[in-house]
Amino acid sequence: MARPHTRSESPLVVHLLLCCTFLLAFRAPATTAASAPAPAPTPTTLNMTWDVEYILWAPDCQQRVMIGINGKFPGPNITARAGETVSITVNNKLHTEGLVIHWHGMRQVGTPWADGTASISQCAVSPGESFTYEFVADKPGTYFYHGHFGMQRAAGLYGWLVVDATAEQGEPYRSDYDGGELRMLLSDWYHESVYAQAAGLERKDKHFEWVGEPQTILINGRGQHDCMLGAVTGYHRGIDRRARTCVRGKEAQLCRDEERCLRRSECGPYCPESQCAPVVFDVEPGRTYRLRIASTTSLSALNVQVQGHELTVVEADGNPVEPFTVTDIDIYSGESYSVLLTTNHTPGSFWVSVGVRGRCPKTLPATAVLRYTNSRHPWPGSPPPETPAWDDLQRSKGFTHRIKARRNAAEAPRPPPTEQVNRTIVMLNTQTLVDGHVKWAVNNVSLTLPATPYLGAYFYGVQGSAFDASGEAPDGFPDGYDIDLPPANNSYKTRLSDRVYELPHGAVVDVVLQNADMLRHNESETHPWHLHGHDFWVLGYGEGRYRSERLNTEDPPLRNTVVVFPHGWTAIRFVADNVGAWAFHCHIEPHLHMGMGAVFVEGVDKMRELDVPREAMMCGVIKTSAAVLTPSKPRSPAPAPAPAP
Amino acid sequence: MARPHTRSESPLVVHLLLCCTFLLAFRAPATTAASAPAPAPTPTTLNMTWDVEYILWAPDCQQRVMIGINGKFPGPNITARAGETVSITVNNKLHTEGLVIHWHGMRQVGTPWADGTASISQCAVSPGESFTYEFVADKPGTYFYHGHFGMQRAAGLYGWLVVDATAEQGEPYRSDYDGGELRMLLSDWYHESVYAQAAGLERKDKHFEWVGEPQTILINGRGQHDCMLGAVTGYHRGIDRRARTCVRGKEAQLCRDEERCLRRSECGPYCPESQCAPVVFDVEPGRTYRLRIASTTSLSALNVQVQGHELTVVEADGNPVEPFTVTDIDIYSGESYSVLLTTNHTPGSFWVSVGVRGRCPKTLPATAVLRYTNSRHPWPGSPPPETPAWDDLQRSKGFTHRIKARRNAAEAPRPPPTEQVNRTIVMLNTQTLVDGHVKWAVNNVSLTLPATPYLGAYFYGVQGSAFDASGEAPDGFPDGYDIDLPPANNSYKTRLSDRVYELPHGAVVDVVLQNADMLRHNESETHPWHLHGHDFWVLGYGEGRYRSERLNTEDPPLRNTVVVFPHGWTAIRFVADNVGAWAFHCHIEPHLHMGMGAVFVEGVDKMRELDVPREAMMCGVIKTSAAVLTPSKPRSPAPAPAPAP
Repeated sequence: MARPHTRSESPLVVHLLLCCTFLLAFRAPATTAASAPAPAPTPTTLNMTWDVEYILWAPDCQQRVMIGINGKFPGPNITARAGETVSITVNNKLHTEGLVIHWHGMRQVGTPWADGTASISQCAVSPGESFTYEFVADKPGTYFYHGHFGMQRAAGLYGWLVVDATAEQGEPYRSDYDGGELRMLLSDWYHESVYAQAAGLERKDKHFEWVGEPQTILINGRGQHDCMLGAVTGYHRGIDRRARTCVRGKEAQLCRDEERCLRRSECGPYCPESQCAPVVFDVEPGRTYRLRIASTTSLSALNVQVQGHELTVVEADGNPVEPFTVTDIDIYSGESYSVLLTTNHTPGSFWVSVGVRGRCPKTLPATAVLRYTNSRHPWPGSPPPETPAWDDLQRSKGFTHRIKARRNAAEAPRPPPTEQVNRTIVMLNTQTLVDGHVKWAVNNVSLTLPATPYLGAYFYGVQGSAFDASGEAPDGFPDGYDIDLPPANNSYKTRLSDRVYELPHGAVVDVVLQNADMLRHNESETHPWHLHGHDFWVLGYGEGRYRSERLNTEDPPLRNTVVVFPHGWTAIRFVADNVGAWAFHCHIEPHLHMGMGAVFVEGVDKMRELDVPREAMMCGVIKTSAAVLTPSKPRSPAPAPAPAP
Repeated sequence: MARPHTRSESPLVVHLLLCCTFLLAFRAPATTAASAPAPAPTPTTLNMTWDVEYILWAPDCQQRVMIGINGKFPGPNITARAGETVSITVNNKLHTEGLVIHWHGMRQVGTPWADGTASISQCAVSPGESFTYEFVADKPGTYFYHGHFGMQRAAGLYGWLVVDATAEQGEPYRSDYDGGELRMLLSDWYHESVYAQAAGLERKDKHFEWVGEPQTILINGRGQHDCMLGAVTGYHRGIDRRARTCVRGKEAQLCRDEERCLRRSECGPYCPESQCAPVVFDVEPGRTYRLRIASTTSLSALNVQVQGHELTVVEADGNPVEPFTVTDIDIYSGESYSVLLTTNHTPGSFWVSVGVRGRCPKTLPATAVLRYTNSRHPWPGSPPPETPAWDDLQRSKGFTHRIKARRNAAEAPRPPPTEQVNRTIVMLNTQTLVDGHVKWAVNNVSLTLPATPYLGAYFYGVQGSAFDASGEAPDGFPDGYDIDLPPANNSYKTRLSDRVYELPHGAVVDVVLQNADMLRHNESETHPWHLHGHDFWVLGYGEGRYRSERLNTEDPPLRNTVVVFPHGWTAIRFVADNVGAWAFHCHIEPHLHMGMGAVFVEGVDKMRELDVPREAMMCGVIKTSAAVLTPSKPRSPAPAPAPAP
């Protein structure tokens, strides 16, 4: 692949590429002799230019400021072909905020600086500056992108990233659907700004302010805060006693209020051009569709059902799974699925309902409409179906445990055997207090991030001044720790730290996520953990404390995000063969903000061989580091020394 | 003075300073021989460390997120002695935002990189990073500091900066007051976040959203949005028909609501520890006080009166003025005054009232209490006095025109004579449209700021790639332009530009600010213009279009901020003897955001002699500039070249 480049270097790189293309064309004319192998298809590049800026938007019929891309929310769809180079120039037009964009699910092999994690893989792109993310579109599947700096994801910085298979590869499930694709990007939305949310999370002692439940669930960036599209039942009023149905006639008068509609986009879901208009999926009867579903929620675990239609799960996080059929699916933040849906009803309209699970809901379900062509009823007559009980944990586990690797599929590699495991890290997940501040911690270390990105620190050899490199983050926790008691009942003091785990290149690593009691006794939450730079095998889930359990190495699914259930454990395995610095963290935005994460640094000795773009690392101690004045190896193009004055 | 240093270089600098101190001590023992001149007092340094962070605060009894310093709003008071070195280390703990802090009124001679203007004097300090501002406290006077990046000033980033005279200097007016000092830092406060405000200002065409009038006026960071401290009159109800008096008894029940008071600080002005408690000035009868007043409003022009007390103006923007006595003063954003106030009443309590002028007010006046010791009434009985009519422009002009240099004062230097003027720049102030966006412009150029700070661009010699250096910003506007008609009626197209004015070192420069019709015919506003790096002489004000008028070179006041009245002009003069890049702009926050400003670059040929700190300039094109790899001159400490790998 072409070396990722940034805007300032583009002209030269383009020039070099043109030269190479010319030379190649000269040496290999475009004729296919019978005896010669067919030339590899010319690698293509998908180029996009994005202006990231504040926009006033009304995703749930109430106007707020959001982070938008090219003037819209959610950001543009990316649809790439596997193996294609994706080149996205991001112009930061936020006035005072830096930004990065993480390409969730892309493994970034050879391009760790394009992973888009501030403080880890790069410096934030400063206001007024531009940065070009260039990476290879990974294996075919359902992905998304989002901000990964502060809580910018929750501010609206996200969008679709779908990778289609090449003709040679073929879509793993292509023969199973004849109706095309549908897409549902799920998120939750808060009316309080992320700055206020963050400030509340950092307050001490009794002043701590939790973000609370979101105001609205969004489907493809649209929801309705003031009302529900469908009929309201006792179930909905139990969630929000003010729940009411949006009235189509009533909004007409708002639609005619030019001032309000023009200036505030709050003119109700049924006004023309409304930003909170209902999402409608138009389908033909008697077909099977592939429905891609991804969740980039800040907090909520969601359940998706399509009234009267079963869903067959065939993909999880860009990996094929052994198909299984359910009436609804659970999806946690950071996860993605493809499900097959057959339109086997009499033509009509059906509710898609997306509700909260795992936490006592205060947010009404989001609804969309599956509308058959030739339906006599453009809107469903019955109320939207109810979401399964939020606290039915067995149901959640039942769904999660059914996800297994696809049988006999070349694209579902098996994990290295257990005897090859080089290192096992057990990660105790606790909610604790540090100096009066509520924090989340791993083995009683709450992650803080340094001003200098880890990748740059290793590349320039300034680890010692960039972060606490005097030791590694802890591999486990004391034997005597009782996971069924709050941390206060254990003599194990939490501290803040920016230490990392250093993994030798190629090491086989097992990680066991161990859940535990929170600050309040008998409470424990579900956390979706996401690993950057890798897929991992999910070897098993269990209740209580992990004690060298038997793990599934037969058909474990490959994923990039996995949940750990309350008071339980989850075991994963991956091969540390991707040189770089990779975040591993709870994908709940406020939990990460409160320190629930870790960083794996892989292939330290190979770090300096990377072709890290200088401008991606010019922050923190690197700005003044003498090491930067003399690059460790010649670069192309080498910076010309300026003549002495 | 000691060279400003940043945190990373501090240990070495401190070491060098200690060495020097030791050598000096050895060479000049601390005994004063009768014949030897007294040793100069050891220069002192005022050191402060600030954490800048988001805080949840209720400045007007309603909680919002603000930018605070060390957990509080407004920021800490700085009280320095003239000539002292002020060294303030700013730790940026905002999660995603950069920041700079401008020391409003400090001329920064020799330290232009410490002026705290993003894109002009330095790169914004990135999240997680620190920067040490080090500069000499300028001449004695009343100043303040504030954010100067995006609209961060309006987000609450500001505080006092007062410079006391040395014993040798003596306070210019010290013999005129025996009662000590009082301080009123005035500001206005919006409930909408600055991100939303900025997004609204940038919308096109009919979607443009002006910030509107502020919700509350604050005195020393406190106001009351829901109610007024004093009795409400028809005047107040004319401004806000919901105006009501805060009831002390009623709030008692809120004070007891621990949840509300602890968590949201919104428990009303009379609750203990309330963040919106009334400001009370305790004074003794029969004394004269120096009242320092400064305005860092986002928008509002304010009028200050103290019920039944006259005010004698003695200082404007840190310069002595010929004393004059008034019943009330007008103050525009960016200005400061000292007034003398004599407590010559029977002991009692009196309202301080601060109301809006110059724009039709929708914001209730702020009130504070001047309370005499031994007063039998801790609160004034009568209603607060009314603010003079907002549209009585003659009254505003009358006040402004009375401000003259102090007669026969050594500290009030006279301007160079008119025949020595090297350059006259006439600046037409217009509100215009650029591609459907509402902008403010100077000579039809609306200022945009580059990602690379001008000072760094000149220092490293990369002007050509950092901004449009192909020419200067325009010195004037067409003769035929009719200032009494909206721009649309003139064939003079506005453009966006980051061009600057280059001024030779020592040039005497006249600037005439020319006001004009806005987009709507017959409308023109008052703009307070603030110059960085200088005081200037205010040579005169006039009506209509400026045509080589007779200017006051006899007793023009020195200031750093001056207003231009509707459809009028204001002429100023300064000497371009301060090497650096200096902003000159309307101090109304949204107007600057919309492009109402200019940049003067002074002493281009001397720029490279500056000792610009590397880390202050490492953004924009400088990050990847080859010039940075080979510093233009040896620096102390010189960066040691790293050994070849």
